Amino acid sequence: MEFRIERDTIGEIKVPADKYWGAQTQRSKQNFKIGDEKMPLELIKAFVQLKKATAITNNELGKLSDAKKEAIVKASDEVLEGKFDEHFPLVVWQTGSGTQSNMNVNEVLARRANELIEEGSDEKVHPNDDINMSQSSNDTFPTAMHVAAYHAIYHDLIPALSQIKQTLLEKEEANMNIIKIGRTHLQDATPLTLGQEISGWRAMVEKSEKMIKESAEHLLNLAIGGTAVGTGINAEPDFGDRVAEQLSRQTGYQFKSSDNKFHALTSHDEMVFVHGALKGLAADLTKIANDVRWLASGPRSGIGEITIPANEPGSSIMPGKVNPTQSEALTMVGVQVFGNDAAIGFAASQGNFELNVYKPVIIYNFLQSVHLLADSMISFDEKCLKGLEPNIEVIEENVNRSLMLVTALNPYIGYEKAAEIAKLAFKEGTTLKEAAIKTGYLTEEQYDEWIDPKKMVHL
Amino acid sequence: MEFRIERDTIGEIKVPADKYWGAQTQRSKQNFKIGDEKMPLELIKAFVQLKKATAITNNELGKLSDAKKEAIVKASDEVLEGKFDEHFPLVVWQTGSGTQSNMNVNEVLARRANELIEEGSDEKVHPNDDINMSQSSNDTFPTAMHVAAYHAIYHDLIPALSQIKQTLLEKEEANMNIIKIGRTHLQDATPLTLGQEISGWRAMVEKSEKMIKESAEHLLNLAIGGTAVGTGINAEPDFGDRVAEQLSRQTGYQFKSSDNKFHALTSHDEMVFVHGALKGLAADLTKIANDVRWLASGPRSGIGEITIPANEPGSSIMPGKVNPTQSEALTMVGVQVFGNDAAIGFAASQGNFELNVYKPVIIYNFLQSVHLLADSMISFDEKCLKGLEPNIEVIEENVNRSLMLVTALNPYIGYEKAAEIAKLAFKEGTTLKEAAIKTGYLTEEQYDEWIDPKKMVHL
Amino acid sequence: MEFRIERDTIGEIKVPADKYWGAQTQRSKQNFKIGDEKMPLELIKAFVQLKKATAITNNELGKLSDAKKEAIVKASDEVLEGKFDEHFPLVVWQTGSGTQSNMNVNEVLARRANELIEEGSDEKVHPNDDINMSQSSNDTFPTAMHVAAYHAIYHDLIPALSQIKQTLLEKEEANMNIIKIGRTHLQDATPLTLGQEISGWRAMVEKSEKMIKESAEHLLNLAIGGTAVGTGINAEPDFGDRVAEQLSRQTGYQFKSSDNKFHALTSHDEMVFVHGALKGLAADLTKIANDVRWLASGPRSGIGEITIPANEPGSSIMPGKVNPTQSEALTMVGVQVFGNDAAIGFAASQGNFELNVYKPVIIYNFLQSVHLLADSMISFDEKCLKGLEPNIEVIEENVNRSLMLVTALNPYIGYEKAAEIAKLAFKEGTTLKEAAIKTGYLTEEQYDEWIDPKKMVHL
Amino acid sequence: MEFRIERDTIGEIKVPADKYWGAQTQRSKQNFKIGDEKMPLELIKAFVQLKKATAITNNELGKLSDAKKEAIVKASDEVLEGKFDEHFPLVVWQTGSGTQSNMNVNEVLARRANELIEEGSDEKVHPNDDINMSQSSNDTFPTAMHVAAYHAIYHDLIPALSQIKQTLLEKEEANMNIIKIGRTHLQDATPLTLGQEISGWRAMVEKSEKMIKESAEHLLNLAIGGTAVGTGINAEPDFGDRVAEQLSRQTGYQFKSSDNKFHALTSHDEMVFVHGALKGLAADLTKIANDVRWLASGPRSGIGEITIPANEPGSSIMPGKVNPTQSEALTMVGVQVFGNDAAIGFAASQGNFELNVYKPVIIYNFLQSVHLLADSMISFDEKCLKGLEPNIEVIEENVNRSLMLVTALNPYIGYEKAAEIAKLAFKEGTTLKEAAIKTGYLTEEQYDEWIDPKKMVHL
Repeated sequence: MEFRIERDTIGEIKVPADKYWGAQTQRSKQNFKIGDEKMPLELIKAFVQLKKATAITNNELGKLSDAKKEAIVKASDEVLEGKFDEHFPLVVWQTGSGTQSNMNVNEVLARRANELIEEGSDEKVHPNDDINMSQSSNDTFPTAMHVAAYHAIYHDLIPALSQIKQTLLEKEEANMNIIKIGRTHLQDATPLTLGQEISGWRAMVEKSEKMIKESAEHLLNLAIGGTAVGTGINAEPDFGDRVAEQLSRQTGYQFKSSDNKFHALTSHDEMVFVHGALKGLAADLTKIANDVRWLASGPRSGIGEITIPANEPGSSIMPGKVNPTQSEALTMVGVQVFGNDAAIGFAASQGNFELNVYKPVIIYNFLQSVHLLADSMISFDEKCLKGLEPNIEVIEENVNRSLMLVTALNPYIGYEKAAEIAKLAFKEGTTLKEAAIKTGYLTEEQYDEWIDPKKMVHL
Repeated sequence: MEFRIERDTIGEIKVPADKYWGAQTQRSKQNFKIGDEKMPLELIKAFVQLKKATAITNNELGKLSDAKKEAIVKASDEVLEGKFDEHFPLVVWQTGSGTQSNMNVNEVLARRANELIEEGSDEKVHPNDDINMSQSSNDTFPTAMHVAAYHAIYHDLIPALSQIKQTLLEKEEANMNIIKIGRTHLQDATPLTLGQEISGWRAMVEKSEKMIKESAEHLLNLAIGGTAVGTGINAEPDFGDRVAEQLSRQTGYQFKSSDNKFHALTSHDEMVFVHGALKGLAADLTKIANDVRWLASGPRSGIGEITIPANEPGSSIMPGKVNPTQSEALTMVGVQVFGNDAAIGFAASQGNFELNVYKPVIIYNFLQSVHLLADSMISFDEKCLKGLEPNIEVIEENVNRSLMLVTALNPYIGYEKAAEIAKLAFKEGTTLKEAAIKTGYLTEEQYDEWIDPKKMVHL
Repeated sequence: MEFRIERDTIGEIKVPADKYWGAQTQRSKQNFKIGDEKMPLELIKAFVQLKKATAITNNELGKLSDAKKEAIVKASDEVLEGKFDEHFPLVVWQTGSGTQSNMNVNEVLARRANELIEEGSDEKVHPNDDINMSQSSNDTFPTAMHVAAYHAIYHDLIPALSQIKQTLLEKEEANMNIIKIGRTHLQDATPLTLGQEISGWRAMVEKSEKMIKESAEHLLNLAIGGTAVGTGINAEPDFGDRVAEQLSRQTGYQFKSSDNKFHALTSHDEMVFVHGALKGLAADLTKIANDVRWLASGPRSGIGEITIPANEPGSSIMPGKVNPTQSEALTMVGVQVFGNDAAIGFAASQGNFELNVYKPVIIYNFLQSVHLLADSMISFDEKCLKGLEPNIEVIEENVNRSLMLVTALNPYIGYEKAAEIAKLAFKEGTTLKEAAIKTGYLTEEQYDEWIDPKKMVHL
Repeated sequence: MEFRIERDTIGEIKVPADKYWGAQTQRSKQNFKIGDEKMPLELIKAFVQLKKATAITNNELGKLSDAKKEAIVKASDEVLEGKFDEHFPLVVWQTGSGTQSNMNVNEVLARRANELIEEGSDEKVHPNDDINMSQSSNDTFPTAMHVAAYHAIYHDLIPALSQIKQTLLEKEEANMNIIKIGRTHLQDATPLTLGQEISGWRAMVEKSEKMIKESAEHLLNLAIGGTAVGTGINAEPDFGDRVAEQLSRQTGYQFKSSDNKFHALTSHDEMVFVHGALKGLAADLTKIANDVRWLASGPRSGIGEITIPANEPGSSIMPGKVNPTQSEALTMVGVQVFGNDAAIGFAASQGNFELNVYKPVIIYNFLQSVHLLADSMISFDEKCLKGLEPNIEVIEENVNRSLMLVTALNPYIGYEKAAEIAKLAFKEGTTLKEAAIKTGYLTEEQYDEWIDPKKMVHL
């Protein structure tokens, strides 16, 4: 491999000749040979959006020349287009402020900007003095965290939620009149319709979507302008506001500069809060996926009230076996989100003084949750939910033999006599009707009038 | 002990003669000898508020006689006054729908109502048919959970947040001009004022309060009206709305009947979401408590920039030792809230079909978090924060010898030359000024103009 | 209330006249009004065992007079008998070293010892100088943690494990020949016997017991002898060894003084490790409880392959409903243990320098896990498992109609043809045999020879 | 891209012509577009080791021809050498039994084996009938999990533990006589030596290593031989034992076939247990990393008792800043391990009947923990610990002015008088000696004899 010599305030270091990064990136590569988890590229892109916005702002404020600004903007656009993805090699497990990824961005943009500027100019873009002008890692990294997190939610998660919600709505409507047995404590309960049951799932998705959106508003607050410790040293007083405005123009999101920059550098309560909403979604999806696979269990010795698509051979040893694999992937994602939530909460509690230095692990887990939730919802929707169909025969058989229809008798004969009837039917293995009439508490006509599953579901 | 015989649909059972509970409560006591954790009394009280509201509503709907209604209302008021606390003996570790605690409430209220009604009446209040009329455990327990949780937040947590916020605000103002060294990565950084540092803590408390309040709005949705499986079997269609309205009148909170009762019985995403906000607060409080104890560390070999009250002897072996014990209690509470959050999230994911049967463990952990957070904030505020004072001498010494004031030179001489100055000062053990001048990058006059901590804090 | 005046190095304070505690306990009561969670009494008892052992040891070493030693031993024995339980009023949420509970023990024992010594003696037992002689909270609290934890495991958990294991063994043997359908991914799979299925549960309990016992050996290492920071200042060099030996005599457990006292004061890796084994048990019990309730689901529209006892009315609205409530209590305990595990792990990571000050929250959660696991296993065993019976009719019906018996054909006709048969039977709704013969891949005789559930279970 | 047509029991599917995988792998790729987390290659390699062992065993048992066996062994060796890494494209988020990765291995090995066998033979290796002979995903996947987990521990983690332990031992010895102030509750306490303090860290690493090794023994139990549901259908009775023996020969580890295969397929208590030991290590490492960065805090306004290497510029805005970045990476890894532990425990609890279908998420998190712990320990050791040096000047200054040396007076004048001295010194800002003499409780000679830091550390 060929190298060139780069230098930073520590000294000289060899960098691969074909890479745009500089000395500090190289140093980090060598100092942190830990794991394979790269700093998420979407965080890098959020960083570059920010660098573009700061360059424009510094230029407006008269601190950065037009030539430099234009070169930086152009370089940024190229990175955003994905032309430099391989030049961001650092892992998550580096300095907890993410300084090295900030410098990676500064170095790549500076090098590329200098290439763009070079012809006929003696201006030279410096990673710290120009790209990082009026900034610190301590305010840019949390800014990039919020930008990336908000974008991931709106770009990936909300569309996935909309898609799955739409399918649920269709299934809810299609099955609204199919009366089935309800189950509580896994035991037969009073009836409801399959559409009603599905409406509960739909409501979970809707509720979670609402909570995610509400909480995500807090991500619009950006640390930018706080610089090193929150005071904004080396930045103009309105730098944060201006950059937030510029970023909003670039992204279409309504960012603003945080009210209290000391908070913005050292607390990640907002990330914890939003991830709490993601955890609520993970809990709901786990519940839905479990319901689907239990309702589809069998095919002959399970509940079998619905069928779901057979997408692949289910077993390497049992021929013809079909498994609810999409439910399995989705619930494993649920588990992962629970684990990520524990990690994020803990990390957020460990700030000291002016800075929390667990930023990379927070954003890594946060983005993993968002993407796994989004992808697995799409997958579950397309490979499972869309193909979910009621197994009418089984559904009817189950509802007809249920004993819990007896509940409808409470208002007429009271809980205790109703219990007597249900117990008699269970003990003697008869239908509810037979038992009811046998007790003499009601006539056949009364039974037929009072026990009507259609009325019980309160459609 | 003397006993009376009670019966339920299972059969007869002996109940202590002096207790108001009935057969099902007694059965639960005997069947669940697990742990000492009682079902929280405030959940019981929320249940009783609900029973009062349902009696009034059932009466309005013409389903419950005036005599019964009045007796139930009176009995409920007595329980709410605390006269029957000892009659709710059940533990958390019972059926996961909380049916047995619902029945405990039904039984105690029925027995007491019958005492109140007895004279000159042949009406008899039945635990199921009257107290539980138009209800199921499956909709009343989650309703009581939301009522108790919302009340705990507004009655205990928000006032505690207000109190600590007020103290922080006072300390922030009192110390707004005391310039001190900032610290990032535990290393000396650029200066800020003690008031600014405290403002970060204050902003954390404010931000958490905001997130808790926002998320808690979701608790205003009540399951009531869903009865057994969400369809509302045995309840009038507008029963849920009416009860919610009545409950709002009784409590002053703006409850409403949930849009989708299937969701309300089987999903606890709202509890997860709100507890996520509590976890954000726990993370912030952990951070604040840590900052306080580190800043107060010493007295002679620590940071020692603040002093906090000496409330008790700190050591059983080291005479005269004083410890930051309020920080310790507060951070242990933080740990507990993290654990509770993991439990709640997991529990919320485990619903099946029409019901989640992890309700008691969810509300137990939720209320523990609220109370521990509230109590420990009050304690921390009164026994520690209020007595926090700056140690001016140490603060000034630290800020004066810091090398990171060099940051202010970036805009004048660039990052690299500034680094050279800081490193020289460190290496030679001199002041920053001496090193700056020695390098020749600036004059003494320039140094004095550019390096001014007062300007750096951007007040 | 009447008071007496007590004093400590902070000054005077009023203490209820009828209580044995002294100034420092009183101060803690007033300074930490946080929650209701009392420091577990069994930790107090472990502390008293330790104080008795240290008094004997200090006497042997010639540092404590016979009169004092005898009075302390007698006072200790009285506390161990439960005569002073009300004199330990402090909560978990106090100083993180547990100093205040150590002083509570020192104060109560000193006061009681002085009563016992008083007549005809001018010796006076001092809480610090005598009861706490050669000790610090920093070594006694972790010692008491290990003693209490080990005792709880061997006194409560292991017997409960033995009891449930015995029942499982009986059920395993009783049902060893009942062939039933296996289920993987909730889908019908190849058969096994009910006894084999139960043997898996039994093996889980056994395996967990083994892992708990192995890991608990680490709790036998005691911090005692380390005093304030691990160096053993103010204690004789062999004090730790002697006390451990004396404690072993008193308790029957094989305690020893930890090899490295610096570790013993500041790391709780052993508690984390043992609680990891408890978490393994909680996971297994959750799995078993889920299997039981699913197998018992129905009674008419579930799996219904087993029946479990109907211990109480299951529903306040649905008459005659029976629910798997013991499974529910057990799985809620599982959830709690998961939460506790998160709390303990986090707490254990937060030590600084010579001490971890999260000790009370660690032992509180640890002991709660042990007791909830023990109690809920006993409850589950006695109220559910012992009454578990196979529902032969359903079991046979399920196994007979299963399609996965086809697996036994793999060695004869290969996986692909076997799959073809299963799919054909499923599609046409026929028996496996009909489909097999229809394909022509095998004869009826071959089918009857190769497809024999009895052979498939490999008993 | 060019394709070939492959088929499985579902039907035909296009597969990239240059890839060795078959229909089921391709189907999984298309059905599970979730996340980027690939099934860990080391799990694949463990799978291949197993496939090699099963081929040899099936050949020994007379069920697999020599030609097929040899081809499979050769193909396996080639995969183990890394020649086919790109042919295992599946993600973690697939079916929860890992069937699709088992089939991926079966397909790649079969295809490669057929290439190797092809010339002059009409034998054809089938993915299911030959490579998967006598096996199911349900026993092979958990077998591969244990093999991969055990190997990762012994190949990566234990060496890393040894390395860091060695450095700690060297630092412990080198600094054994440097007396420094102890700190408890972050407050000055009695002295110890820096070597003693480091010995506590060393003991943590040793203790964790011991617990990891002990618990890892449970991973030697393999599920192999259980096949589909634990009965061993389609496998010879001694197949599991034989394969375990063969695997032991191949790997050098002492594997054995699990006593109870029903447990082995459906419980992952062993994984939970071992990861609990990893969590103990993570807690210890967090504590050590925190101690290091606090002791190195400053350089001028922190504790500053040690220095650690300056590996990179610490700040993008503050010139010359040096940060404890290795501590930051290590503590972020700690956070990740805590999150992983929550995920693994939850996943392990979710088995149903004969199978736990959360296997991929368990092994993914487990292996991530092992590798992050190993890598970050090596990094911390080489880039930080090895360069840790005492800052003698600061250490001496701190110990000399400490007040807690007063503890040594307890045995002579009692706790209360000693406290009086310490408080006087603190209040008047004098040395301890001045205060001691001023109280008159002891003479200067006594002070000099009794207060001797060298004696206090009990070397």
